[in-house]
Amino acid sequence: MAEIKDLLGNDTVLRTDGRKTDELRPVSIVRHFTDAPEGSVLISCGNTRVMCTATFTAGVPRWRRDSGLGWVTAEYAMLPRATSERTDRESVRGKIGGRTHEISRLIGRCLRGVVDMKALGENQIQLDCDVLQADGGTRTASVTGAYVAMVDALRWAEAHKLIRSAEKVVKDSISAVSVGVINGTPMLDLPYIEDSQAMTDMNIAMTGAGEFIEIQGTAEHRPFTRDELNVLLDLAQTGNRQLQAAQRKALAAE
Amino acid sequence: MAEIKDLLGNDTVLRTDGRKTDELRPVSIVRHFTDAPEGSVLISCGNTRVMCTATFTAGVPRWRRDSGLGWVTAEYAMLPRATSERTDRESVRGKIGGRTHEISRLIGRCLRGVVDMKALGENQIQLDCDVLQADGGTRTASVTGAYVAMVDALRWAEAHKLIRSAEKVVKDSISAVSVGVINGTPMLDLPYIEDSQAMTDMNIAMTGAGEFIEIQGTAEHRPFTRDELNVLLDLAQTGNRQLQAAQRKALAAE
Amino acid sequence: MAEIKDLLGNDTVLRTDGRKTDELRPVSIVRHFTDAPEGSVLISCGNTRVMCTATFTAGVPRWRRDSGLGWVTAEYAMLPRATSERTDRESVRGKIGGRTHEISRLIGRCLRGVVDMKALGENQIQLDCDVLQADGGTRTASVTGAYVAMVDALRWAEAHKLIRSAEKVVKDSISAVSVGVINGTPMLDLPYIEDSQAMTDMNIAMTGAGEFIEIQGTAEHRPFTRDELNVLLDLAQTGNRQLQAAQRKALAAE
Amino acid sequence: MAEIKDLLGNDTVLRTDGRKTDELRPVSIVRHFTDAPEGSVLISCGNTRVMCTATFTAGVPRWRRDSGLGWVTAEYAMLPRATSERTDRESVRGKIGGRTHEISRLIGRCLRGVVDMKALGENQIQLDCDVLQADGGTRTASVTGAYVAMVDALRWAEAHKLIRSAEKVVKDSISAVSVGVINGTPMLDLPYIEDSQAMTDMNIAMTGAGEFIEIQGTAEHRPFTRDELNVLLDLAQTGNRQLQAAQRKALAAE
Amino acid sequence: MAEIKDLLGNDTVLRTDGRKTDELRPVSIVRHFTDAPEGSVLISCGNTRVMCTATFTAGVPRWRRDSGLGWVTAEYAMLPRATSERTDRESVRGKIGGRTHEISRLIGRCLRGVVDMKALGENQIQLDCDVLQADGGTRTASVTGAYVAMVDALRWAEAHKLIRSAEKVVKDSISAVSVGVINGTPMLDLPYIEDSQAMTDMNIAMTGAGEFIEIQGTAEHRPFTRDELNVLLDLAQTGNRQLQAAQRKALAAE
Amino acid sequence: MAEIKDLLGNDTVLRTDGRKTDELRPVSIVRHFTDAPEGSVLISCGNTRVMCTATFTAGVPRWRRDSGLGWVTAEYAMLPRATSERTDRESVRGKIGGRTHEISRLIGRCLRGVVDMKALGENQIQLDCDVLQADGGTRTASVTGAYVAMVDALRWAEAHKLIRSAEKVVKDSISAVSVGVINGTPMLDLPYIEDSQAMTDMNIAMTGAGEFIEIQGTAEHRPFTRDELNVLLDLAQTGNRQLQAAQRKALAAE
Repeated sequence: MAEIKDLLGNDTVLRTDGRKTDELRPVSIVRHFTDAPEGSVLISCGNTRVMCTATFTAGVPRWRRDSGLGWVTAEYAMLPRATSERTDRESVRGKIGGRTHEISRLIGRCLRGVVDMKALGENQIQLDCDVLQADGGTRTASVTGAYVAMVDALRWAEAHKLIRSAEKVVKDSISAVSVGVINGTPMLDLPYIEDSQAMTDMNIAMTGAGEFIEIQGTAEHRPFTRDELNVLLDLAQTGNRQLQAAQRKALAAE
Repeated sequence: MAEIKDLLGNDTVLRTDGRKTDELRPVSIVRHFTDAPEGSVLISCGNTRVMCTATFTAGVPRWRRDSGLGWVTAEYAMLPRATSERTDRESVRGKIGGRTHEISRLIGRCLRGVVDMKALGENQIQLDCDVLQADGGTRTASVTGAYVAMVDALRWAEAHKLIRSAEKVVKDSISAVSVGVINGTPMLDLPYIEDSQAMTDMNIAMTGAGEFIEIQGTAEHRPFTRDELNVLLDLAQTGNRQLQAAQRKALAAE
Repeated sequence: MAEIKDLLGNDTVLRTDGRKTDELRPVSIVRHFTDAPEGSVLISCGNTRVMCTATFTAGVPRWRRDSGLGWVTAEYAMLPRATSERTDRESVRGKIGGRTHEISRLIGRCLRGVVDMKALGENQIQLDCDVLQADGGTRTASVTGAYVAMVDALRWAEAHKLIRSAEKVVKDSISAVSVGVINGTPMLDLPYIEDSQAMTDMNIAMTGAGEFIEIQGTAEHRPFTRDELNVLLDLAQTGNRQLQAAQRKALAAE
Repeated sequence: MAEIKDLLGNDTVLRTDGRKTDELRPVSIVRHFTDAPEGSVLISCGNTRVMCTATFTAGVPRWRRDSGLGWVTAEYAMLPRATSERTDRESVRGKIGGRTHEISRLIGRCLRGVVDMKALGENQIQLDCDVLQADGGTRTASVTGAYVAMVDALRWAEAHKLIRSAEKVVKDSISAVSVGVINGTPMLDLPYIEDSQAMTDMNIAMTGAGEFIEIQGTAEHRPFTRDELNVLLDLAQTGNRQLQAAQRKALAAE
Repeated sequence: MAEIKDLLGNDTVLRTDGRKTDELRPVSIVRHFTDAPEGSVLISCGNTRVMCTATFTAGVPRWRRDSGLGWVTAEYAMLPRATSERTDRESVRGKIGGRTHEISRLIGRCLRGVVDMKALGENQIQLDCDVLQADGGTRTASVTGAYVAMVDALRWAEAHKLIRSAEKVVKDSISAVSVGVINGTPMLDLPYIEDSQAMTDMNIAMTGAGEFIEIQGTAEHRPFTRDELNVLLDLAQTGNRQLQAAQRKALAAE
Repeated sequence: MAEIKDLLGNDTVLRTDGRKTDELRPVSIVRHFTDAPEGSVLISCGNTRVMCTATFTAGVPRWRRDSGLGWVTAEYAMLPRATSERTDRESVRGKIGGRTHEISRLIGRCLRGVVDMKALGENQIQLDCDVLQADGGTRTASVTGAYVAMVDALRWAEAHKLIRSAEKVVKDSISAVSVGVINGTPMLDLPYIEDSQAMTDMNIAMTGAGEFIEIQGTAEHRPFTRDELNVLLDLAQTGNRQLQAAQRKALAAE
């Protein structure tokens, strides 16, 4: 682990975009990006841009009725030219791919992890995360952006007296960031070029209180040790704290 | 017809957004909206916003091979919260609706109408029109924006020596606009609120030379006369001329 | 336009089937073609043969309930060997193609354009147009034949006291015909061989009163001018008048 | 079994349409019903009407290539208003039902049963049986009609020198008929009203030589004995002989 | 027929697995194979192994409600490596093949053939037959095994007071077996190697009383005569009697 | 964290099945469960039973050709009555659910994580994990069982000279286990009853060398701290070591 720590402190490691190993890409969060949805956010993390909308609906799916509890669900998709090669539309192919399903479910779990379903009451929030441009970290940007859109939708619901208090529904903030090991060096917030070279790739969603909601680590190319895991978790903590600061700043503005 | 002409000249007809009957909504065309596609345009017509990307690919579909001719095709889709009520994703429903098919085909025909397939050679341009926000006229905005994205993709192809001359491929410009009869009054460029009240609804695509590429008129609620048709065609001509000016201005900028 | 008019009057223009430029193909309308449906028509326009059935059902789709209004809808399909090359069944492919969707929607709009939904009451008419043999103009033959089947279904409904008066439901008759420009010459009612050569192709649905319900003009191969449009509309008027005479004759017989 | 024979001989058993228990419904076979297919037949068995087309194509599916053998396959479908209640299209539902699959496979097996695949060479015959009107026995009428369409397609192929001899490809004729036990009485050729009351229902395809190609007997409502089976097979033999006479007569005409 | 009888009695005919022509493969029926279902059976017929589960549910499908009658339905499927070559999953292909549909329907009809729907009351039994290993006769093994699973589910229902008496619901036992003609010799219970060589192939489901519920005979490769049919039916009777003995023995055990 | 450690050491915590918090359910691994596949394993972890087959095929998917590298992929599915309530088949629903996709992808990644693709050469291994009975931990049992099936398939390939050495292809063993926090107590290997109560739920795949291939932790119900994470990872290490011992023992047997 000594070696890894050393690398982390080593300013001479050059990333393709000149960032330090523990540095986030520039983050921007635009609220009210479109007018129709109750919450509508355009989040940019470097070149990755995701439009996150939150739809607030009175009522819950059938299986949830008469429980007194609300529900939060999410769908993720990529526009065909979000990527450098055009991807066929899943609507045209007639089915949703495994990756899309996997990410949609991840986003839903993350957001549900900070929602008090009792305080939400029998209402539903549907999050839609549509990737306009993809340069790595689209699923983590989706979580981070969807949180802001959800808060806006809850504030709207409070203003329209559909819930008592948006603040009570949201138990904590949530953001997510990717970390990975590139050529033996742990790094924060991987763009596509790094992501495709990573031996280990993790996505980590954390609450404002610094606790974990979701940890997903994969090592198709080389298993990782517990020491490496700990370094990656430290990096993720650093990144998520900054993302949460950006969320707070965006939500403070009017 | 006297009556109709009179109405057209009558400034006292109030539209919900204060426009005159022969006035377009504000148009904005942003080029290079995203980085990955060969052409990427965000077009806004009033509150309607469509992201139009153009993908240039060497080669054509199998049925077109060894013809020496190129191909242009288009796909249209709406994001779930482009509308005031959330619409289910067609990828989730597992099939594409009739309306989507109809509009995709219309856009494709319009763009092909101004392309010299020989000059394009055995290359393909795929247009993707994704509606971020819908307030009427999404199909006509798609045609107008897709033209600009297509020109950008052809310029890119020329710069990369994949075609000889972008200018020779594009025989003329093309734009489209909606017109309709609301409570007996012909009007130009209908937002959703007017569109839903229209007795007659037309979408008209015209070339820079003022000729027609596509005329689609529907009168579910009251048939229209030849006189009314002529008034509507005049309005469409007015609107398309202005849209083409906006296209030229956008394409002139660097 | 002088040139065009001249061509129209010029008997020396030879069509593959020997017709004049403003001449319809032979039309035949057989009512009660099959026994089960409330309306069942076999319409032949030249070699194009379409079986049109009309199903009358009490009740309307959910979104229409308690409106006091009826609904009319249509589905179009081709049998696999309607064409010279066999076409795969859409049921086997598992999805309906864009062309089928587009035509089904067109037929539905046309028929709804002459129906008084209040007089129909909360009842539904479902039109099915199945092409047994295709030789151009299948969509326009479908509209023309479906009208007769619909009237039969309404007469049946009147006889069974499900509606007060078939006559009151049908505000006017409707027929449709194709017109197009072939090698610069405008022509009426294009068979497949002409249709595939057309530079401009229009389908025009008109009421018995001579007003338009639907105008669809496409010019993938060469834009058309307003003068050409006017000649085409004249041709369409000529054709639709004759089709409506054939409809009247068929419906007068018992 | 005495009792059953007795019933068969008993002229006093009344069928809804006045036929005797061992009497076929009127059969009509119209060749060249449409022009495009290599074989096109409209067969009527009572009120059941099926359009059977045969498509002859040079070449076989991939799995059959370089075998020197041909292939015969079939698809069956019902038009939506073939039945007294409208049936949703399988193309609209997006999948083919079990019944359709089962019948398509049955027709294919029956026709293959009389084809010499070597004599056919690497060519394919695709049979399409589309039910225009259904009144029981649609699958057996399909087999009987498809045989005639197939012979016509083979004659066409012989005339076009695509095969040496149509006669050599067809080893024997084939027809099929339904039989069943209604209220204890075995009967031949069941219309819908009888079919729905049958305790036992069999479809039997036989060659001109009187041998079996396919026997399908089902007894959801009451098991049947070997004696009953024998009576039903006798009835089927009677019916198939008459159907084969009708096939011969149709094919003899020019 | 003399010749055929002779062959049947001829011990010198060698089958690939050393059996006599009228000999079943070893049968084993394991009840309570898994714990969750109301009935769960693993049946082995030679190398063919099918897991049959029976699900008892209170209530019937909508179209059956308020009839006082129950319903029995079945689904058949093969695991991807039940066969020597891997078969793609039908869930991945997105549709169920014709063979699967055909067999599912056959199993359902067979089981319904021995159930007294009135005694079952408004309850449903869903049979699932999943082939773990396929070596011919999977559909007949499914019928034979599903019967045992169904009886177990009914005994469970009786014990839970959901029906009065399992015995009254089941009117008789049912089993099925394949028979076929291989190189002119009729044989009982065909493994895959024989099945693929069979000129005639029959599946015959019989009740404990020795009556027929389902007869399916196919002769793609050579038509069969009435004499051959009779020999095959005799063989099937022999086989089914032994299978029913195995069922009784399994159901007698606790 | 003191409190957590204490709980772990506390024998008085009662699990529904009487196990200690750090105790695995009984594991059984049956090789050669069926005959057709190159590798076929039935793994039982408590009441969870999964049939894992490995199919070895020469050649790789198109996108992988001429790379000199092999490929490993996996599919997971549940039989309808693996669960206490019957689940509809995904083949019948016509699409694969998100959960199935997510798990199939997880299994594939895990197995690829221990395979040397160069040593495998251009060959493919397809793993199929079909859950016969589900009682929690089906995805981890699938990983553990699939590893054994894969080794068997590689040994088969070595014996058939399709690869040089099975041992060289498999870089290390891999197993997976679930851990979770129930009422504040971290526990190993959760059956369904515990899984559904877990506040935090992790699935951890480890190599024989004790390194991580996959970590998936989810906390919909209560975020977890770094200390809890560490306890859970310790438990997972304990469990995976025992599972790997069971794998070794199974693979040592002949």
